[in-house]
Amino acid sequence: MSSAAVAFARENHARFLDELKSLLRIPSISTLPEHAGDCRKAAETLAAEFRRIGMENVRLVETAHEGGHPMVYADWLHAAGKPTVLVYGHYDVQPVDPIDEWLSPPFEPTERDGNVYARGAVDDKGQVWMQVKALESLLATGGLPLNVRVLLEGEEEVGGEGIAEYVASKPADLKADFALVSDTEMFAPDLPTLCVGLRGMIYTELEVKGAKTDLHSGMYGGAAPNPFMALAHILAKLKDENGRILIPGFYDDVLPPSKEELAAWRSLPFDEEHYRQTEVGSKTLVGEEGYSVLERTWARPTLEVHGMPGGFTGAGAKTVIPAKALAKVSMRLVPNMTPAKAFEQYKAYVEKIAPAGVDVTVRLIHQGDACLIPVNNKYIQASVRAMHEVWGKDTVFIRSGGSIPIVGDFDRHLGLSSVMMGFGLPDDNLHAPNEKFNLKNFRLGIESLIRFLEEAAA
Amino acid sequence: MSSAAVAFARENHARFLDELKSLLRIPSISTLPEHAGDCRKAAETLAAEFRRIGMENVRLVETAHEGGHPMVYADWLHAAGKPTVLVYGHYDVQPVDPIDEWLSPPFEPTERDGNVYARGAVDDKGQVWMQVKALESLLATGGLPLNVRVLLEGEEEVGGEGIAEYVASKPADLKADFALVSDTEMFAPDLPTLCVGLRGMIYTELEVKGAKTDLHSGMYGGAAPNPFMALAHILAKLKDENGRILIPGFYDDVLPPSKEELAAWRSLPFDEEHYRQTEVGSKTLVGEEGYSVLERTWARPTLEVHGMPGGFTGAGAKTVIPAKALAKVSMRLVPNMTPAKAFEQYKAYVEKIAPAGVDVTVRLIHQGDACLIPVNNKYIQASVRAMHEVWGKDTVFIRSGGSIPIVGDFDRHLGLSSVMMGFGLPDDNLHAPNEKFNLKNFRLGIESLIRFLEEAAA
Repeated sequence: MSSAAVAFARENHARFLDELKSLLRIPSISTLPEHAGDCRKAAETLAAEFRRIGMENVRLVETAHEGGHPMVYADWLHAAGKPTVLVYGHYDVQPVDPIDEWLSPPFEPTERDGNVYARGAVDDKGQVWMQVKALESLLATGGLPLNVRVLLEGEEEVGGEGIAEYVASKPADLKADFALVSDTEMFAPDLPTLCVGLRGMIYTELEVKGAKTDLHSGMYGGAAPNPFMALAHILAKLKDENGRILIPGFYDDVLPPSKEELAAWRSLPFDEEHYRQTEVGSKTLVGEEGYSVLERTWARPTLEVHGMPGGFTGAGAKTVIPAKALAKVSMRLVPNMTPAKAFEQYKAYVEKIAPAGVDVTVRLIHQGDACLIPVNNKYIQASVRAMHEVWGKDTVFIRSGGSIPIVGDFDRHLGLSSVMMGFGLPDDNLHAPNEKFNLKNFRLGIESLIRFLEEAAA
Repeated sequence: MSSAAVAFARENHARFLDELKSLLRIPSISTLPEHAGDCRKAAETLAAEFRRIGMENVRLVETAHEGGHPMVYADWLHAAGKPTVLVYGHYDVQPVDPIDEWLSPPFEPTERDGNVYARGAVDDKGQVWMQVKALESLLATGGLPLNVRVLLEGEEEVGGEGIAEYVASKPADLKADFALVSDTEMFAPDLPTLCVGLRGMIYTELEVKGAKTDLHSGMYGGAAPNPFMALAHILAKLKDENGRILIPGFYDDVLPPSKEELAAWRSLPFDEEHYRQTEVGSKTLVGEEGYSVLERTWARPTLEVHGMPGGFTGAGAKTVIPAKALAKVSMRLVPNMTPAKAFEQYKAYVEKIAPAGVDVTVRLIHQGDACLIPVNNKYIQASVRAMHEVWGKDTVFIRSGGSIPIVGDFDRHLGLSSVMMGFGLPDDNLHAPNEKFNLKNFRLGIESLIRFLEEAAA
């Protein structure tokens, strides 16, 4: 590679990493109201950096809803006749519980074994910082090869309501030819990867109310409804023990992967037993019979329970029949399913199967569309060339079981196809204790993004 | 009533109530380690009061296990030729959550509408204080009419392990002819009541482990086991939606109530619809078909879930598949069932039905025997006479769905039959927010206990 920008990135890499650590120290947990100030601080830190490296029109864009966290906008539009990329990432992070399982404090970035460990290391501050440093390297060595708009958000981990509304309003500031999204992972170490499919989702709460107040389980057990038992009966009827979702009609719209895609997935370096041992660690894997693990996690819907607040959760014993209990339940959706229809089917079914004696409220917390990106467009091909140069290998096309609703929004509202270039690894523990980002991937990711922007302008 | 002791109690009633409030201000929550000092303070307060009123050999008896709370012992044994009563109550209380549903602070006793509201008001500090004040009234007016030993505990709400071990060791200090237990309620206002049956219990924890760490539900949903879903499937197979427990053999040893007892229950002033509206407040009552509410809560076993710790329980959304989740599950047992057999049946069944992919651990937290007291013994009859004098009515014999394991221990280890004279009311909110004790019942309860001790000595 003869790129001056790549040379600049290599010379300044130690500083880049130090700067990333500073960003990781800000506990910008978007779902916890007490961290709203930290989210704003992360946004301001990024805005200041964009100004410093020479981006223009830098500003925070407030989201419209109450308790939201600001977006960060910046642009550089001096590459006349060249395409415009909309660069996306998010600066907010997941909560850190269970905190006692972290080997080093989640907001004190720590290097171990060629990784940096911190909440947000890979999801998504480390990847955002790759974008920022790629732009800096290009700006410092002659300017950007194409027009760039950046839009970062601080609500990705809470559903991205603010950016979704903003994108839906089609602001002139977001006019572009394609999007670059850095929030995904490589299929395996040293294997350049483009994610071309995402699951959508609906995140819901089931609230079950029984008695008007908490009751003594001795006095009332046998006559008063138990909200947790009611939830257990509802949940057991939502998904069977073989992983099949039992909501009527739920699978009707599922678009199966093409034969070619399934064949490509079968040739990926994937060992279910290794995956079970190293990533999941359960005694067996679970899920629908007749589908491989990749199909189950990339191309089949799922239904998961995240927590069941209510009642007595302390140490020891309390003999209470709680007046109410909740279940946090989400469903991942696949291409051709819509969040609205899935939620309607789910809600109607839950209301139908609710046991006697309790009132059930079904709430939609947030939602996002699934998406599939055609692999033959010129920006995808530019990324393949750039990554071949940096990693010395052909790119594999995969999907992700996760949800990046903004990719669907960019398509639907702005007509932008996304290039999802991400450099996480499968064992990065995102959303879990000991989240990390591989330092080699951070370094080569910056170089890949530099070369991608150069190739996309060609 | 010509009793000098009753006259003393009436003259000093205002002071008695003030003293009770002082005791209620001590947050002696036995299940929370941070309140261990408060438990000891409550024990010391009671010991000081026993010394002040003239009881002898007053001392704290430490329990043998780690983190335990002391018992309080006192005696007065100068009634030569008279029987000896062992007086029992407990000074520990339940936790206060959900704290935001209390209308006045749980540890700031507040009078409203003829009641005193506080955690522990009726369960059991108010009833213990009736015992203490009955003894004071008798001691202040000529001495006790019979020999009295008092044994109070501070671990009733956490299973009473310490006192159970102590009673099982058959200490000479507990030699007596019968026991007086004040920890139950009247069937209705102004209706003198003796409880002659209790359900036993086993309190357990189910811990389900799936993956080795928390996982992202997008990345792994569909392949990784979900501990909450596994618990839902287990719980749904433990009890059906009609309240029938599905553990094989669980009902085999159930002793049905006699025809006479069932007939007596049918004549009690009990209106299911009123009970549903005023006590439970759910839209319908639940439970096994073919059994009345009184049978379901007094004479049928039940299985209840108290809380399901684990995962994400904060506000908002976190898309985690937790590595583990728990369910706090208890079963109430009826006469002729044994905790050991019930736990074995439960554990074997849970292990058999555990879904693939997860490890389930079944833990016994504590247990207690059910009991049935014959109603024709002389101390029960003495209580009936005493209460007829104070309340002007015949006593009704009921059971309680709750568990007072010490009653079984007194019988098994010390050969003592218990007289369960309690003055709570069905709407006292025990174990729930806004626990209360009726002030009239506090006053007449003291007089009833004074007259009972006099009658029992006759």
